[in-house]
Amino acid sequence: MPSKSINKFFAPKSVAIIGASDNTKKFGHVILKNYMDMGFTGNIYPINPGHDSILGIKCYKSVLDVHDDIDSAVIVVPPKAANDALKDCVKKRIEAVVMITAGYRETGGAGICREQELKSIIKDTDTRVVGPNCIGIYDSFGKIDTLFLPDYKLKRPASGNIAFISQSGAFALSILDWAATEEIGISRFVSYGNRADVDEIELLNYLRDDKKTKAIAVYLEGVRNGRDFLACLKKVAAKKPVVILKAGKSKSGTKAVQSHTGSLAGSYEVFKGAIRQGGAIEAENTEQLFDFCRVLAYQPTAKGQRIAVITNGGGFGVMCADSIEKAGLSLSEFSKDTIENIKSVMPKEYSSVHNPLDLIGDADVRRFEVAINNVLKDRNVDAVIIVTLLQTASLGPEIVDVIASANERSKKPIIVSASGGEYTQLLLRSLEKDSIPAYPSPDRAVSAMKTLIEYSKC
Amino acid sequence: MPSKSINKFFAPKSVAIIGASDNTKKFGHVILKNYMDMGFTGNIYPINPGHDSILGIKCYKSVLDVHDDIDSAVIVVPPKAANDALKDCVKKRIEAVVMITAGYRETGGAGICREQELKSIIKDTDTRVVGPNCIGIYDSFGKIDTLFLPDYKLKRPASGNIAFISQSGAFALSILDWAATEEIGISRFVSYGNRADVDEIELLNYLRDDKKTKAIAVYLEGVRNGRDFLACLKKVAAKKPVVILKAGKSKSGTKAVQSHTGSLAGSYEVFKGAIRQGGAIEAENTEQLFDFCRVLAYQPTAKGQRIAVITNGGGFGVMCADSIEKAGLSLSEFSKDTIENIKSVMPKEYSSVHNPLDLIGDADVRRFEVAINNVLKDRNVDAVIIVTLLQTASLGPEIVDVIASANERSKKPIIVSASGGEYTQLLLRSLEKDSIPAYPSPDRAVSAMKTLIEYSKC
Repeated sequence: MPSKSINKFFAPKSVAIIGASDNTKKFGHVILKNYMDMGFTGNIYPINPGHDSILGIKCYKSVLDVHDDIDSAVIVVPPKAANDALKDCVKKRIEAVVMITAGYRETGGAGICREQELKSIIKDTDTRVVGPNCIGIYDSFGKIDTLFLPDYKLKRPASGNIAFISQSGAFALSILDWAATEEIGISRFVSYGNRADVDEIELLNYLRDDKKTKAIAVYLEGVRNGRDFLACLKKVAAKKPVVILKAGKSKSGTKAVQSHTGSLAGSYEVFKGAIRQGGAIEAENTEQLFDFCRVLAYQPTAKGQRIAVITNGGGFGVMCADSIEKAGLSLSEFSKDTIENIKSVMPKEYSSVHNPLDLIGDADVRRFEVAINNVLKDRNVDAVIIVTLLQTASLGPEIVDVIASANERSKKPIIVSASGGEYTQLLLRSLEKDSIPAYPSPDRAVSAMKTLIEYSKC
Repeated sequence: MPSKSINKFFAPKSVAIIGASDNTKKFGHVILKNYMDMGFTGNIYPINPGHDSILGIKCYKSVLDVHDDIDSAVIVVPPKAANDALKDCVKKRIEAVVMITAGYRETGGAGICREQELKSIIKDTDTRVVGPNCIGIYDSFGKIDTLFLPDYKLKRPASGNIAFISQSGAFALSILDWAATEEIGISRFVSYGNRADVDEIELLNYLRDDKKTKAIAVYLEGVRNGRDFLACLKKVAAKKPVVILKAGKSKSGTKAVQSHTGSLAGSYEVFKGAIRQGGAIEAENTEQLFDFCRVLAYQPTAKGQRIAVITNGGGFGVMCADSIEKAGLSLSEFSKDTIENIKSVMPKEYSSVHNPLDLIGDADVRRFEVAINNVLKDRNVDAVIIVTLLQTASLGPEIVDVIASANERSKKPIIVSASGGEYTQLLLRSLEKDSIPAYPSPDRAVSAMKTLIEYSKC
């Protein structure tokens, strides 16, 4: 039996905020304001028996008092009232309910019973639940934002093509905030908390067919059913890249998982095998999760593993070559034409053009442009890593436009590495907006490129 | 025979800028202005035959025209005039000369002869040379700044206790710029370019006895004499931590080194062995170089390897536990007192206090304070990693003061991990200023802690 659709979570035409509040400190206020600020185009129904209107919108005592149909609801009332609110949602035939409220299975004791009750409330109904005990959904296209933290504490990422689902709300918060600052765009984000109903399998299946999503980042502590998860991975990863960060790999980590989300972490070796068998990609740490997703979402696949390295900082070229060899990839041999054309823009005393290509410290934008374009044309080159030193006197910020324009025309993957302070970071974010993944070290750039090349072989 | 002292490079009472210019685009202008802006307290002598004064300071045709003694000089004239300028420095008995000028051995051909001549000019004289083909010296205490890039392209780091020497100027630029933005303080920095005279051995020996320096970061492509280098390392590393990033480890990287600094990279295995034998620490990538130096320079040594993890984000606690186990370290068992005291500030429904300690999502500053202080007092705890989620509604920015104050009172190492956007990064930089190393992921925090613990055993 196919499970009931979860589509309404992402494209609702209306939303009820159950527990909406005029107190700016309450989650119910922040969430209501989020929907308004995001420009949610459907109807918004604040639900709170104590108010006639909140933030200028008519307020209702219950969802049952609303005349029109309602597609989705967010529940932020205290635990004692949450299941009753859910019952109203079921009566009102609301299909998508995000339960932010905590105090369920994760607290043990009475919370476990409360979660059992939740499950029985929605059993055999049209209502689906994300949560409880979660931070919910952020959808940059559907204009949905249940993240209950104000913008000054938690920046929201722009629209983009990376989806992100997370079993941990806290981890997700910090990543979304970081992504926003780094100009990394997110398509849909879901924190599904206690996973009382909707789980990672359904979310992955939804994202597989989601046209806005090109790569999927997953933070997992444990899965409900290993066999189903593996079957799901196989289907999803065959269509688009799935990168998984697994927490609870060690003995002590596994123990910690139990007291965190109450799920069983299971054997890491088994899980690792499932990721590989399922065709997904494992991120070994938090940095790799998005290092890998970005290159997979932004860049075309590579036809081979011969990489050209272009730099204006010799030492960086050396380190990049080291990383490439260590990663088991290879440096391209440039063709004669490439060598001749690049030589023509180099200073006279410059000895020889080879790979890694050191354009030396006085390289300007023009020299980079000639090098990048020639290398991209070269049949011996499958992919390009540009390691820029943006601090030099001769290199203007227009280098960003040159790289972006080459990227637009090329079918070969291009990634950038640059280290530095505010000025460098500003330019890197600009590249990021143009779908060129930029990394703070040659090491991380090569590791991302390796992932892309391995994915390309599948 | 002991080599002539290089002390004058770091504490000169006067400096001649040979090639000073009133053209704001010229290196000779930027460097002159740097010395003035830094607040160099000694006499500054711009040298340029075409000017009477530059930036309001009297200008001389040659150093020989200056009446008083001169301690140091910076040479930024074109290659053809550079050796003549050096001859004048020798005549004037200037002891410390930084040769920024490029066009020496690194260009091959005539450059090689030029470098031979340079060496013969200073042979048997009191003059020492850093460079040529380098970016020279940045000394936050001696108020020396020969970095020829304007402040808006290259931020200067604040004073601090980490020294940094680099065979690559480009790599060093990007790191200094990054360090400045991250509020990482630098004591002395030297880029020594072609190493025609002063080399890493002399610099390391100087830094060993430098009271301002607590840890030394080194970027190396190859050394001149392996045996001497090993002997030097042994002496220096016995006194303070030395962290080395070696470039040119692979076949292609080694080849690239030859065309970069013209030095022989040598066998990486031999080098790796020398680092270990010498008691230094190897950084495997650019991030580790300062990840390690920061914890070693800021924090006390650890008495053991039993780590307490405190967090308000359960998932982060899990990942931290995973990393600790993977690194071969252990999680402390908290004492009964610690458990009781922490329990008293936790919500009633909270089940059990254990390590990793999850203060849960609604933790406030007070809860963190009690946890940190109790854990630091606990005899079963050797070191503390605080993994903060700074985005939550309940945790105010005062957490930074709580950690800083605990750090001031404690003899156990404390490090922090936090991921996030601008707000998080702002708070992390504040910690950094208070000598608490902060890392963007639990993984990197644990890796730094492991390095500190291993260093503590020596």
